[in-house]
Amino acid sequence: MRLLASLLDGAARPSFSKLVLVFSASGGGLVAYADARSDPAPDELSQVPPKKKVLVLGTGWAGTTFLRNVDSSMYDVQVISPRNYFAFTPLLPSVTCGTVEPRSIVEPIRRIIKNKGGEIKFWEAECLKIDPEKKQVLCQTDIGTNFEGNGEFVVNYDYLVIAVGAKEVEDAQKIRRSVINCFEKATLPYLDEEERARILHFVVIGGGPSGVEFAAELHDFVTEDLAKLYPTVQNLVNITVLETAEHILTMFDKRITEFAEKKFQRDGIDLKTGFKVVKVSDKAITTENVSRGETSIPYGMAVWSAGIGPRPVILDFMRKIGQGNRRAVATDEWLRVRGCDGVYAVGDCATMSQRKVMEDILEIFRLADKDNSGTLTVKEIKDALEDIYIRYPQVELYLKTKQMKDILDLIKASKGDVKKEDVEITIEEFKNALADVDSQVKNLPATAQVAAQQGNYLARCFNKMNDSEEKPEGPRRIREPGRHRFRPFRYRHLGQFAPLGGEQAAAQLPGDWISIGRSTQWLWYSVYATKQVSWRTRALVVSDWTRRFIFGRDSSGI
Amino acid sequence: MRLLASLLDGAARPSFSKLVLVFSASGGGLVAYADARSDPAPDELSQVPPKKKVLVLGTGWAGTTFLRNVDSSMYDVQVISPRNYFAFTPLLPSVTCGTVEPRSIVEPIRRIIKNKGGEIKFWEAECLKIDPEKKQVLCQTDIGTNFEGNGEFVVNYDYLVIAVGAKEVEDAQKIRRSVINCFEKATLPYLDEEERARILHFVVIGGGPSGVEFAAELHDFVTEDLAKLYPTVQNLVNITVLETAEHILTMFDKRITEFAEKKFQRDGIDLKTGFKVVKVSDKAITTENVSRGETSIPYGMAVWSAGIGPRPVILDFMRKIGQGNRRAVATDEWLRVRGCDGVYAVGDCATMSQRKVMEDILEIFRLADKDNSGTLTVKEIKDALEDIYIRYPQVELYLKTKQMKDILDLIKASKGDVKKEDVEITIEEFKNALADVDSQVKNLPATAQVAAQQGNYLARCFNKMNDSEEKPEGPRRIREPGRHRFRPFRYRHLGQFAPLGGEQAAAQLPGDWISIGRSTQWLWYSVYATKQVSWRTRALVVSDWTRRFIFGRDSSGI
Repeated sequence: MRLLASLLDGAARPSFSKLVLVFSASGGGLVAYADARSDPAPDELSQVPPKKKVLVLGTGWAGTTFLRNVDSSMYDVQVISPRNYFAFTPLLPSVTCGTVEPRSIVEPIRRIIKNKGGEIKFWEAECLKIDPEKKQVLCQTDIGTNFEGNGEFVVNYDYLVIAVGAKEVEDAQKIRRSVINCFEKATLPYLDEEERARILHFVVIGGGPSGVEFAAELHDFVTEDLAKLYPTVQNLVNITVLETAEHILTMFDKRITEFAEKKFQRDGIDLKTGFKVVKVSDKAITTENVSRGETSIPYGMAVWSAGIGPRPVILDFMRKIGQGNRRAVATDEWLRVRGCDGVYAVGDCATMSQRKVMEDILEIFRLADKDNSGTLTVKEIKDALEDIYIRYPQVELYLKTKQMKDILDLIKASKGDVKKEDVEITIEEFKNALADVDSQVKNLPATAQVAAQQGNYLARCFNKMNDSEEKPEGPRRIREPGRHRFRPFRYRHLGQFAPLGGEQAAAQLPGDWISIGRSTQWLWYSVYATKQVSWRTRALVVSDWTRRFIFGRDSSGI
Repeated sequence: MRLLASLLDGAARPSFSKLVLVFSASGGGLVAYADARSDPAPDELSQVPPKKKVLVLGTGWAGTTFLRNVDSSMYDVQVISPRNYFAFTPLLPSVTCGTVEPRSIVEPIRRIIKNKGGEIKFWEAECLKIDPEKKQVLCQTDIGTNFEGNGEFVVNYDYLVIAVGAKEVEDAQKIRRSVINCFEKATLPYLDEEERARILHFVVIGGGPSGVEFAAELHDFVTEDLAKLYPTVQNLVNITVLETAEHILTMFDKRITEFAEKKFQRDGIDLKTGFKVVKVSDKAITTENVSRGETSIPYGMAVWSAGIGPRPVILDFMRKIGQGNRRAVATDEWLRVRGCDGVYAVGDCATMSQRKVMEDILEIFRLADKDNSGTLTVKEIKDALEDIYIRYPQVELYLKTKQMKDILDLIKASKGDVKKEDVEITIEEFKNALADVDSQVKNLPATAQVAAQQGNYLARCFNKMNDSEEKPEGPRRIREPGRHRFRPFRYRHLGQFAPLGGEQAAAQLPGDWISIGRSTQWLWYSVYATKQVSWRTRALVVSDWTRRFIFGRDSSGI
């Protein structure tokens, strides 16, 4: 009841412009509530009209990149996250085996805020519920045991940026401890060989970049460090990668997949491709395979690396806005949550749905056909091109895969033997020419790169929010008059690494440049060192790598 | 039931010379049992007569020093500990504030074993019960969730070394996280100033070296690092040290105590000496003070640094051997547990009771009085001196405090104005002269230094066990004929540090040399770097210090 008292006290102060006490719908506990203009710190009050309140949920790649780039003098920015730090997640597989210390890849969010000028408020709490109608969010702090009441409080927003990620540093630490625990367990007395072998069977579910990297790291950890310390059981260790598809690393070039599969075979890592996991029980994983049917695989430790579903708070939110049957929050190309005013979703918790050309084909034609002649001339097509390219990036991607220079080549190809300049096409011919471009529409992967670019893009939009009203910089609207305020978000793929262990890595770089081998591992080291958010973490990560080169990885169960 | 099957399988193999299944008295679960000669790894079998089995419980200072020094070719050495690493505990206060990483001060016990030659077996398990009658120990592994049965197993011993410590690295990590949680909590919205101040009130209970060091580290952490990141609450932080005695650091020279108290006052650390803690509840600590009576102190986080009781397994063991009313296992001066054949106790879980001179005074006199004249001549006293000094170190200590050269000075002082060489004394005069020497008998402190010296001493005894049978190296027995096999354990105090924060430290070195100030902090750095158990941890600790100098301490809640 002291919170109640303190709130009532607070109500008499100027900083609490409006305060009511409500009971949360969920648990009936005491909930503190303040309206959009209330500010809990009296000394921060000012006489200028209140800024719009931007509430950011999450301090992962998307949330942090947004924070670093948003102009915090324009908005009252608040961040809520259960973690008070940003983690450089691409190095998490290294943390699972102790190659890099967890502390080295995290940067306190308050330090990031401070470096910006410190006008952003951070609160360490978990978001329990999003109410898009009332534009408010219910939070709960789980810090300590003796927070007053049940620790719930409500925060209002004008704009909400949902950037609730997925991967956690704690998970990586747990994996590391589990690996060592398996070795300690396997060396206990009173176990037969079969049991020891089962305990030392490590199964990685999912043959994507993270799963492959973890399997590779684990193999190195076992052969380079643990084998010496657990000599009696080293021969019993087994690493298996289970993948539903016919190959691992399917998002990479075939040459990389082939190289990785051969390297794993040489290393003795058991690749079971075409195996779908149907059940994971205490001691065995049940898999389904076309030729072999159901098989039960006994294991000591399993790591799930095949994607995860959304968090409960996001599921609940999706149900509220009629997206209950989806796996992630759907946004438009401006990262706005569909049917939800002022709410944006970025990073792993969101999928951007790209509008299809064929949905808009009539409107596109009408827009381009300035003289309403019912046909498009070369000039008319050329005039509309830029807007089409911007609004529907799949067109450009499609041309690239067909090795064509521009849309006119496409039209020419579909119309047959006509000189490019003389083309004049009907709506049907236009439809035919563009019939396949939408095949290039793909969901963006749930990677750090996508999240960071989205966070950056969104911050830029927020910074230009006022200017863009007068000077819209987006493409022409297809179904309505005028222009979009901003260009839609467009992902630029900067390449992807697949570390394969034993100082070998593969990389697929822009322009389909493939790089494989030891030099790629060094490229990996330098890229990841460069990408660190601060000089501090950069120095820590590099010194961790140096430590590992000199002393190996630690096997203490801590 | 697979364990049952595997045990029955095992019974058919030569390695399991005798196997029975018993039910544990405690839980009724399945317990695996093997006799002293069974060996779970068949490939380790040999035809030579079995070595005596030495079982070490614990991998702290005492246990690890024993392991590093014991001749593992003479014994079948087995180690059981819930931690598979040794931790350099004197740096734990630094871990509580992130000055040093926990990983940097731990060394895997298997690496220590491997560097010795690898003949020692290590099992990661908790010891649940010690049965000195049957010479066996009941253990339980808590690794993972799917160990067969309840994970209990029994291990037999010929010699048992109890070296169950107290401090844990995990505790230090928890403290670090709690400190940061308090700051995150205090910056949450909807709290009044009073509540924020309560949350940021850190109370250290106990003004010994650890408590003082933690308070100093915390002060530095707050002022040097956290204040910048939590500017709105930095003025609310309060650190209090509660000490029952009238001063802190009572085991140190008065000059050190005075310096520390003055420095803490300057730093704004609230020293409450003469305050006894009587109750710790969720939000307040109740203290008792002679002049002020009972006071209730609200707090956000409290750290207990005033000594801890023995673990349940040790309590249970003490009850079994009739030491139920003690705070630690009592041993004689050879570190043997009283009334318990083949059991030794070292480190924090044990107290060595020094035999009093006055208990043995008649026997000492009789032993020295070779001609049975009823008086002791100077020559007789001189002949007995060495044995007395070895057997009763308090005599030497007492002479030192009185600034006397030898026992004859003492006798002369008590007898009055006689020439030293002419002394001839009766039993009564002998008694009078030595009446006060036992005042020097003190319990050894529960420090790393004592534990390490005990572990080392015990290993040396074990290594000489056979030789000493023929050539005893100890003093003459007082009550029985012959000589003791070994000299009794004697603690050599190598000095003690008290880091006081702000790059200031105090040290009390042998010969009562006092050193205070910045140079002492550098002495502290160099001594603690030198004392590391491996080059690896040495490099890590030094690089952690360097990191801290350059980048400060991390405030991520991880």
